[in-house]
Amino acid sequence: MMATPAPQTEHDEPDARRYVKLPDPFPMWKGGTLHGGQIAYETWGRLNRARDNALLLFTGLSPSAHAASSPEDPRSGWWQRMIGPGLAVDTDRYFVICVNSLGSCFGSTGPASINPATGTPYRLEFPDLSVEDIARAGHEVVRSFGILRLDTVMGPSLGGMVVLAYAALFPGAARHLVSISGTAAASPFAIALRSVQRDAITSDPDWRNGQYSTDRPPIAGMRLARKLGTLTYRSAAEWQQRFDRQPIRADLKDRTPFTSEFAVQGYMEAQANRFVNGFDANCYLYLSRAIDRFDLAAHGEPEAVLRRASLERALVIGVESDLLFPIGEQRSLAQALEAAGTATRFAPLPCIEGHDAFLIDIERFGREIGAFLAG
Amino acid sequence: MMATPAPQTEHDEPDARRYVKLPDPFPMWKGGTLHGGQIAYETWGRLNRARDNALLLFTGLSPSAHAASSPEDPRSGWWQRMIGPGLAVDTDRYFVICVNSLGSCFGSTGPASINPATGTPYRLEFPDLSVEDIARAGHEVVRSFGILRLDTVMGPSLGGMVVLAYAALFPGAARHLVSISGTAAASPFAIALRSVQRDAITSDPDWRNGQYSTDRPPIAGMRLARKLGTLTYRSAAEWQQRFDRQPIRADLKDRTPFTSEFAVQGYMEAQANRFVNGFDANCYLYLSRAIDRFDLAAHGEPEAVLRRASLERALVIGVESDLLFPIGEQRSLAQALEAAGTATRFAPLPCIEGHDAFLIDIERFGREIGAFLAG
Repeated sequence: MMATPAPQTEHDEPDARRYVKLPDPFPMWKGGTLHGGQIAYETWGRLNRARDNALLLFTGLSPSAHAASSPEDPRSGWWQRMIGPGLAVDTDRYFVICVNSLGSCFGSTGPASINPATGTPYRLEFPDLSVEDIARAGHEVVRSFGILRLDTVMGPSLGGMVVLAYAALFPGAARHLVSISGTAAASPFAIALRSVQRDAITSDPDWRNGQYSTDRPPIAGMRLARKLGTLTYRSAAEWQQRFDRQPIRADLKDRTPFTSEFAVQGYMEAQANRFVNGFDANCYLYLSRAIDRFDLAAHGEPEAVLRRASLERALVIGVESDLLFPIGEQRSLAQALEAAGTATRFAPLPCIEGHDAFLIDIERFGREIGAFLAG
Repeated sequence: MMATPAPQTEHDEPDARRYVKLPDPFPMWKGGTLHGGQIAYETWGRLNRARDNALLLFTGLSPSAHAASSPEDPRSGWWQRMIGPGLAVDTDRYFVICVNSLGSCFGSTGPASINPATGTPYRLEFPDLSVEDIARAGHEVVRSFGILRLDTVMGPSLGGMVVLAYAALFPGAARHLVSISGTAAASPFAIALRSVQRDAITSDPDWRNGQYSTDRPPIAGMRLARKLGTLTYRSAAEWQQRFDRQPIRADLKDRTPFTSEFAVQGYMEAQANRFVNGFDANCYLYLSRAIDRFDLAAHGEPEAVLRRASLERALVIGVESDLLFPIGEQRSLAQALEAAGTATRFAPLPCIEGHDAFLIDIERFGREIGAFLAG
């Protein structure tokens, strides 16, 4: 759920990704099996001898594992100002691992990957994907380093759900948990919104029931889905400040009927353009549905599940202007963690940027995250 | 912006509509001319001898003029519990006129009407439509009755903008004004939302640049547009109460990929189904764009414009959970009216139904409207 996923890396582009093979077979949480699966990840900082300084970072729906620049890949990452030496997620202290989610399309296995059984892309033959599978696949990366216990598991948006699945599935596997603009279960409003985004893609004739060719993906549907995302990742108050009712730049107007007339429409177009060139439609559908389906309560009474997780401390951050993962859901999560015996800080931030604030208001988020990690 | 527009009336269906011919030519506000135009309307109650008990009602984007039942058409109207003998809009006292907006498709001239110059539907040859044109066309109905001054001009949603255009264009033509969940100018968030709805239609290949055949309209695009409308006409809080995370009824599930799984999705589907069979896509596009473009300030400094309107009293109602026409915009409008010397009541209602609350919470809205009309 962010603005600029890195493009699929070409051979001559910098690339800091490493890969971990998933166990073969990798049984999926709701049935079905994956063969020959892999997870792409990047790291920053150094794992210490005791292997107890690792911080595992899950992402929102659309980013890659490239959260920050590194010597191998100096391009800016999606959380560039958050992760680095002396920054809130301090790589002088932490060994940071960011994973590309299972089901995504930036190096990890997903619906756009080749199915070894057929030699063609999985597309809709990819098995059901759950948030739990994203957590389990991320855990394989942790195991590959011989890490017995993470210092911290952290994630924003979808990642804020994945950390809960991680805590539920791997009791004791992390000392600290940071859930950012996430939820223990999506609201019907968020489900409705995401289902319209999926409808926009599946009703695009170019989607072809998932069998689109790579040179003719369902562009119109993806554009609509991204515009809807943009609408709900930000807030009305921010746009009032930024755009008000200003007209669109003259050079962005075209002669089609019902063309864009206002600056805010030009912004939406630009967001859509950046997205459709960077993300696979079937991957989007799988990940979007997984978000709707996740429910921490499916693992048992949340307080009991979280108690079993044996977390020492937790930080739950949210933003008061978030339409999609409303602040009340983070408040409930913080209460459940506290009730489960975890020392929990709940930080409702007054940012006006809505759901995406964690990508923009690095000052406020960094202050909370830095203070929490400093203990 | 309501749930169930009456279907186009067949010969054997009840029909309470009357028609007024527009002046021929009818020059449009932003250029272009209409020939042979007409406005459909319905009435309730009786115009008194002094012709001073008339209440003109404009509608939201999608309703017809059938606001309430009558002897000629006993079917329920879109504001059935609001208008009638002894109700908040008391037809024992008022002569109520509800007009189908110019540009709509329920009897008034719009893009789906036959262009007398060509013998075929206007489609995109229909001239630019402005909220001002809807007000001017409604005024022709008022003139046809020999009414010199309305007791009240009233409208919800789009209608809440039309009443402002009416006041700006026809100073002194109404003693009282009631603007319900309307605004003096749409916010960039609302513009963005409506532009995605329009995009959904114009990017449907069946739209065919407006030249769709009546037996193959852009169904997929209209469904998406309506689902988006449904999302923003209600509120997250209401859906939490109504649907929570309940699964969809088993008989509403189908076997398509990414089919609906939650009750809220079933609700969205039902809303979409009702809409696509009742509304013309090009009419929708014209009306939707007109809402975005309207700006009371285009008529001059709002306080001066409203002072010139010579209103005696005004009621501005809004709902705190409205995403599309947020309460702050109604507050500003009420302040401008008050500053213009109009005795104004501002009623921010705590309904949880969002923008559509005026159609649902008749008790709260009726109490405010009834008290205002009683003086």
